[in-house]
Amino acid sequence: MVKVNGFSFVARSAGIRKSGKPDLGLIFSTVPARCAGVFTTNKVQAAPVLVTAPRIAAGECQAVLVNSGNANACTGEVGMQDALRCGQLAAKSLGIDEQLVAVSSTGVIGHPLPMPLLEKTIPGMSEGLSETAVDDVANAMMTTDSFAKVASRQAGDSAPYTILGVAKGAGMIHPNMATMLSFVMTDACVDQHFLQQALRQAVEGSFNIITVDRDTSTNDMVLVLANGESKTPEIVADSAEGQEFAELLRGVLLDLAKMIVRDGEGATKLVHVCVNGAADDGDARKVAYNVATSNLVKTAFFGEDANWGRIIAAVGYSEAQVDPSRIAIFFDGVPVVQKGLGTGPELEAQATDVLKQAEFSVTIDLGLGDGRGEYYTSDLTYEYVKINADYRT
Amino acid sequence: MVKVNGFSFVARSAGIRKSGKPDLGLIFSTVPARCAGVFTTNKVQAAPVLVTAPRIAAGECQAVLVNSGNANACTGEVGMQDALRCGQLAAKSLGIDEQLVAVSSTGVIGHPLPMPLLEKTIPGMSEGLSETAVDDVANAMMTTDSFAKVASRQAGDSAPYTILGVAKGAGMIHPNMATMLSFVMTDACVDQHFLQQALRQAVEGSFNIITVDRDTSTNDMVLVLANGESKTPEIVADSAEGQEFAELLRGVLLDLAKMIVRDGEGATKLVHVCVNGAADDGDARKVAYNVATSNLVKTAFFGEDANWGRIIAAVGYSEAQVDPSRIAIFFDGVPVVQKGLGTGPELEAQATDVLKQAEFSVTIDLGLGDGRGEYYTSDLTYEYVKINADYRT
Repeated sequence: MVKVNGFSFVARSAGIRKSGKPDLGLIFSTVPARCAGVFTTNKVQAAPVLVTAPRIAAGECQAVLVNSGNANACTGEVGMQDALRCGQLAAKSLGIDEQLVAVSSTGVIGHPLPMPLLEKTIPGMSEGLSETAVDDVANAMMTTDSFAKVASRQAGDSAPYTILGVAKGAGMIHPNMATMLSFVMTDACVDQHFLQQALRQAVEGSFNIITVDRDTSTNDMVLVLANGESKTPEIVADSAEGQEFAELLRGVLLDLAKMIVRDGEGATKLVHVCVNGAADDGDARKVAYNVATSNLVKTAFFGEDANWGRIIAAVGYSEAQVDPSRIAIFFDGVPVVQKGLGTGPELEAQATDVLKQAEFSVTIDLGLGDGRGEYYTSDLTYEYVKINADYRT
Repeated sequence: MVKVNGFSFVARSAGIRKSGKPDLGLIFSTVPARCAGVFTTNKVQAAPVLVTAPRIAAGECQAVLVNSGNANACTGEVGMQDALRCGQLAAKSLGIDEQLVAVSSTGVIGHPLPMPLLEKTIPGMSEGLSETAVDDVANAMMTTDSFAKVASRQAGDSAPYTILGVAKGAGMIHPNMATMLSFVMTDACVDQHFLQQALRQAVEGSFNIITVDRDTSTNDMVLVLANGESKTPEIVADSAEGQEFAELLRGVLLDLAKMIVRDGEGATKLVHVCVNGAADDGDARKVAYNVATSNLVKTAFFGEDANWGRIIAAVGYSEAQVDPSRIAIFFDGVPVVQKGLGTGPELEAQATDVLKQAEFSVTIDLGLGDGRGEYYTSDLTYEYVKINADYRT
């Protein structure tokens, strides 16, 4: 069980979810932590986002309260009051300033929070705090997730610290609106400005290669809290330590991001789409995005069909510079297309074996330049349709 | 049975499709027709597109040969030779110049056409031409389509002519790469330049509101042939007759486009997404597109769930100007959101009844300006996944 100095956790079943599953989690740091956040770019923002974003921008945070079962989105002024009230209840229970509490919600949109349940449950939560209960919080954040998502990294012996993250999210097929929440705790001491910069960068190389900025839900939120309780020297930008911290942070977020794809609603496969040889990185990313989000490509993955025709067509309708006669496509190492033409039935049969795996890569070489981009995606399955057709009913 | 003066049709089972279904169609005009075309914008273009586009641009066409079962795409130089050869065979059989033959293909990508079958079948086709066999051609164009798509309009008594169209296409869920073909025959006499302009406009208001430019397959093609055999006066731009022709042409294409959505792979519902009150038409179209292509919205339609939360979130992540507190959403006439807030369980129950219908509209009013846009979409179902996972195997 990974612990992080100064952090403790607790979860409860408040009854927001009718199933009676845990639906309320609390993360607490014994001292105020420096913090950074990345929030949804959706123009429709849920009340907890509106309440929390300015608090994080102020630079210090000591607790995160998260509920599942209700997004507190599209709930108007009542929703704002409810989000503030939840923060107050947590602050009072913990004996801290309410401005140091981040609040976060995920679940159905358009229904007010069941405040009587929260009024009853939040006040007693601080009593249950435990430094080993991070899994409970990860569990309480779940909506259609099929497993709790926790990842961590440790820094080396000379100045040891830990980065521990939890996340929630599963609807990444086309990533519209499937709320993604992630909270990262570290006992490192990190310069505030660098912390925000490192988080932004880490999100770009993790959550943003399973989703894209515009495809955000009303509630998306990634927070990092650095409380300095490792008592190691302050980590600043443009240093070896800063570089190491940034890499470890990205490692935690990428682990969580891959778990989200693997847990994509109904998904049975994790596919790494890599694009090389593009005119530039932007082009590479566009191509990777188009391939990774094509329903026809994703259903072919589910059908374990090495259908490179669908891939090459998705490459072609991207806005990237493309010369069809230079395209090469590989499933893991197996070339199925060279110079824009199929390589024949024998290699296609080998590629079909690759597709039978639970994890594989599709590499597309455009043969034009040095641009690179990547994306993680899953297959599109019967189960996806079932989950999303039945979600509210 | 709608007939168009001077046009005749024939279809055959050449054996390209292993099922033995008809897979080869021929459309013939007794005289060379003025023509116009809209072709895929995909950077990867199939051989028949490369062969046909310049012929149509030359302004005259007398025959269209179409096959299903094989797209002749990503087939390199061999594919080009095969496409040219098919045109030659048809031209010879019909006794016309090969430059007057358009060729078109749909089906799997990356396999050469089975030329021996085509060499054997095409030469005898002209013998079977019949002016009442348009349905046979529509039938021979089908791939995953579940029904043949034919629509027509007649112009008024003073100068009567007919517009008759066929189309193929069914994979419009996210419209990536699902080839869309349409051929329109009219005996009107139409100015060549105006014909191209009217076609472009009609496509914008029909096929392009079920798909978008970038989401084109390697093979997409819409052709119109106007042979003048109605012997009515030439129709030119900026005239009442031109206006009428443009409207009738759009009517035919919109009928065909709706059939394509209704036949969307596995689709059970046809949904008209209307956006009003946007800052401008471009914004309205962006919002309509985002809502119409959201997998989560579409699975909610399948689940007959009036889940306006998913709709409002899709509105929010569009790039359009949005003020959440002004959004209104209606299912047919039933308001489920006013000023960004839900209207309560009673109206939501009424909306759920609307969703039980096979056809309904979702109207989104952004409350900002006069911008309008629309889109037709379908639901996302188990059957979609099944069809696309199994398509090649």
